[in-house]
Amino acid sequence: MKIMLIGASGTLGSAVHRTLADRGHDVLTVGRGAGALRADVSDPAGVAALYDAAGPLDAVACAAGDVPFKPLSALTADDFHAGLRGKVLSQVELVRQGVSRIAERGSFTLVTGVLAREPIVAGSVASLANGAIEAFVRAAAIEIAPQRVNAVSPTIVTESVPDYGDFFRGMPSVDLADVARAYVRSIEGAQTGQVFIP
Amino acid sequence: MKIMLIGASGTLGSAVHRTLADRGHDVLTVGRGAGALRADVSDPAGVAALYDAAGPLDAVACAAGDVPFKPLSALTADDFHAGLRGKVLSQVELVRQGVSRIAERGSFTLVTGVLAREPIVAGSVASLANGAIEAFVRAAAIEIAPQRVNAVSPTIVTESVPDYGDFFRGMPSVDLADVARAYVRSIEGAQTGQVFIP
Ligand SMILES: NC(=O)c1ccc[n+]([C@@H]2O[C@H](COP(=O)([O-])OP(=O)(O)OC[C@H]3O[C@@H](n4cnc5c(N)ncnc54)[C@H](OP(=O)(O)O)[C@@H]3O)[C@@H](O)[C@H]2O)c1
Ligand SMILES: NC(=O)c1ccc[n+]([C@@H]2O[C@H](COP(=O)([O-])OP(=O)(O)OC[C@H]3O[C@@H](n4cnc5c(N)ncnc54)[C@H](OP(=O)(O)O)[C@@H]3O)[C@@H](O)[C@H]2O)c1
Repeated sequence: MKIMLIGASGTLGSAVHRTLADRGHDVLTVGRGAGALRADVSDPAGVAALYDAAGPLDAVACAAGDVPFKPLSALTADDFHAGLRGKVLSQVELVRQGVSRIAERGSFTLVTGVLAREPIVAGSVASLANGAIEAFVRAAAIEIAPQRVNAVSPTIVTESVPDYGDFFRGMPSVDLADVARAYVRSIEGAQTGQVFIP
Repeated sequence: MKIMLIGASGTLGSAVHRTLADRGHDVLTVGRGAGALRADVSDPAGVAALYDAAGPLDAVACAAGDVPFKPLSALTADDFHAGLRGKVLSQVELVRQGVSRIAERGSFTLVTGVLAREPIVAGSVASLANGAIEAFVRAAAIEIAPQRVNAVSPTIVTESVPDYGDFFRGMPSVDLADVARAYVRSIEGAQTGQVFIP
């Protein structure tokens, strides 16, 4: 399949990229500062230009989504806007604009995370964003069939524990290989409207 | 208790208002076009002015939240922005700005809805908004204790079936009295971080 992967240079994205390439897929990598195509998907016009540049696609997978991490007492209204732009509206636009662009039975795989379900201190924007996308996936799925849309919702990945482990004390981690497998399940499987917890 | 109720003139809000008043609470009603105080809570500056005008409060309850209902294929990026402003950022601001304003053991009760869990055609913005707020409630709760925050998440109310029933075919409805009871549970009870499904 021809798969466009946004965030292919990141922690999750590079594992997903490697796994999809190993499975014989043609992966078109996208990022703001790295990738075969450069785009900022938090800008709706950037998403449109990206689809114009990408050409025919069988699947779109996203492993990108920036949200601010701060205690609620330090968050501003602009921080919530930034998180919604960075992780919610970006992924919504990939689907909204992608429906008319990708293959008739193509799929979208978005990224969320454990904070949709389990809160941590300083994670309220991430929780908000993840909860939004997981509910959106269930809703969009019933309208875009036979195209499909799912979310991959990992806990902290083992490889990120040195960086962010202090925020996730006592919470289990998941290996990147398992996260990549969840993307494969979404892309190569037939389910839709699902939140896959690797 | 002194309770500020946003959306007090609406379908849900007027039932909540009546129930809280019957239970002896002092209810300060708020809306854009009706209410003891007039404010547009989708504007962060409007929320600040509202808290300035309200004075000391024991609880804040919201029964307001506008989102566009359209098929995904008809929704624009601006529609998603409008829904986030109308139901998500508005309620986030009530909590974010309210923490330093309301009583030390005060509470916030927000409104979501069944579309967080169960999708309907034309409901993807509502699903997104409801999912965002339900995850935010879980996250904010662990940071604001001993203040509390919950969501009330009804299915379509029986009294709204003549207006919106066609969108919710075959789905159960709930009576306004049960919705109002869920607000009472949130406000007078001691739970936090909960999504109450009346
Ligand atoms: N790491 C974890 O433990 C973990 C666990 C659960 C969920 N997640 C979620 O998974 C996602 C990725 O996490 P990560 O740790 O892999 O992050 P990361 O290492 O920072 O990688 C993010 C990638 O996305 C790209 N990107 C970010 N914003 C973009 C935009 N607006 N437009 C285009 N590309 C963009 C970045 O490249 P450029 O900077 O070049 O654009 C980078 O390639 C995040 O949403 C995160 O919340 C991560
Ligand atoms: N009705 C249902 O069956 C049902 C079921 C589940 C969930 N819900 C949710 O419950 C909420 C209320 O629904 P409803 O049917 O009661 O709506 P409604 O009858 O339209 O009432 C909404 C109320 O909120 C006020 N309001 C709206 N936007 C506002 C803003 N930005 N600032 C201040 N006040 C604002 C309105 O007054 P003004 O116009 O004067 O501002 C009105 O009093 C919605 O979020 C809805 O999604 C409803």
